[in-house]
Amino acid sequence: MDERLKKQLDFLLEIDKSKNVGRQTYISDGSRKENDAEHSWHLAIMAILLSEYANEDIDVLKTVAMVLIHDIVEIDAGDTYAYDAEGNKTKKDRETKAADRIFGILPKDQAEKMRCLWEEFEERKTPEAKFAAALDRTQPVMLTDKQGGKSWMEHEVKKSQISKRTEPVREGSENLYDFIEKAIERNVNNGYLKNE
Amino acid sequence: MDERLKKQLDFLLEIDKSKNVGRQTYISDGSRKENDAEHSWHLAIMAILLSEYANEDIDVLKTVAMVLIHDIVEIDAGDTYAYDAEGNKTKKDRETKAADRIFGILPKDQAEKMRCLWEEFEERKTPEAKFAAALDRTQPVMLTDKQGGKSWMEHEVKKSQISKRTEPVREGSENLYDFIEKAIERNVNNGYLKNE
Repeated sequence: MDERLKKQLDFLLEIDKSKNVGRQTYISDGSRKENDAEHSWHLAIMAILLSEYANEDIDVLKTVAMVLIHDIVEIDAGDTYAYDAEGNKTKKDRETKAADRIFGILPKDQAEKMRCLWEEFEERKTPEAKFAAALDRTQPVMLTDKQGGKSWMEHEVKKSQISKRTEPVREGSENLYDFIEKAIERNVNNGYLKNE
Repeated sequence: MDERLKKQLDFLLEIDKSKNVGRQTYISDGSRKENDAEHSWHLAIMAILLSEYANEDIDVLKTVAMVLIHDIVEIDAGDTYAYDAEGNKTKKDRETKAADRIFGILPKDQAEKMRCLWEEFEERKTPEAKFAAALDRTQPVMLTDKQGGKSWMEHEVKKSQISKRTEPVREGSENLYDFIEKAIERNVNNGYLKNE
């Protein structure tokens, strides 16, 4: 087989492992937690349908590509729960090593392109990265709000923690941030988020 | 909340059910079968990384959007296994009703756009739809070839069946069709596909 296509298929088979990387967020019916592949699929459709709410003009394809690959490093580094203080100290180092290995499977030009896209997502400076981050932080709130606060209650998440975690949504989308603020208030009022 | 955003979020929560629509294909480690959301995520990344192999020039964003939503109708209609002759007789009718209901949750302009995209995928006439179909039929072969023919052996799939099923890959991508042909030969030789 052509060497270039072989590298691409090797990468596509390697990232299949994202289907086994568990997240803390339950799917909307509360029956089980979602995985990285499912989460990324959800974000990609959100990027397409909600692009009108980005604060700045965005390249939709670039944003979609970004959210599709943003969690691939977790194949090696694991999912670090947003409210796990210890895990977050070593997250950057673990994820950088994973990016070297996993994106490195691709042909050089695509490896560089995908690696840059991941770094751009992590840095949250461009319009696309800001909107992608807004989606990444809105989707778990949307799901957890729908199914009754399950993961928040399990981890005893406080209002102050989720407010800090979702603060970057404002930079990407004022409209989505408005949804988040209302959802937080609602879930504090019904006791699913701790108000302290 | 704004009525338009509410409809969009309702749709995004509805399609979360794709994470519970099982397919017949096993993930690459053979541990379990994949679901529609995972499959669609995989196809979307393939569309981005393999677009250079499309026989005709394609709009990559359109192709990505198409594969992201192509199986959403299965929330109501269920996944019909490619080699289930009875199920395939009623598939079209079940899926059309599902499209009416599910895309209809969106605001009118987006409902029409997504519905048209799904119909375009089903008709397989445009360059994007042909390439999307090629990916949709290549991905299960890629996975099943990797993990040792598990779903083919369970369903006693014949070489003639898979050759017919993957024939449209040629219309979308000669390069991917070449990979498929070699994979079929290899799996006939090692006994994972029945040669009759």
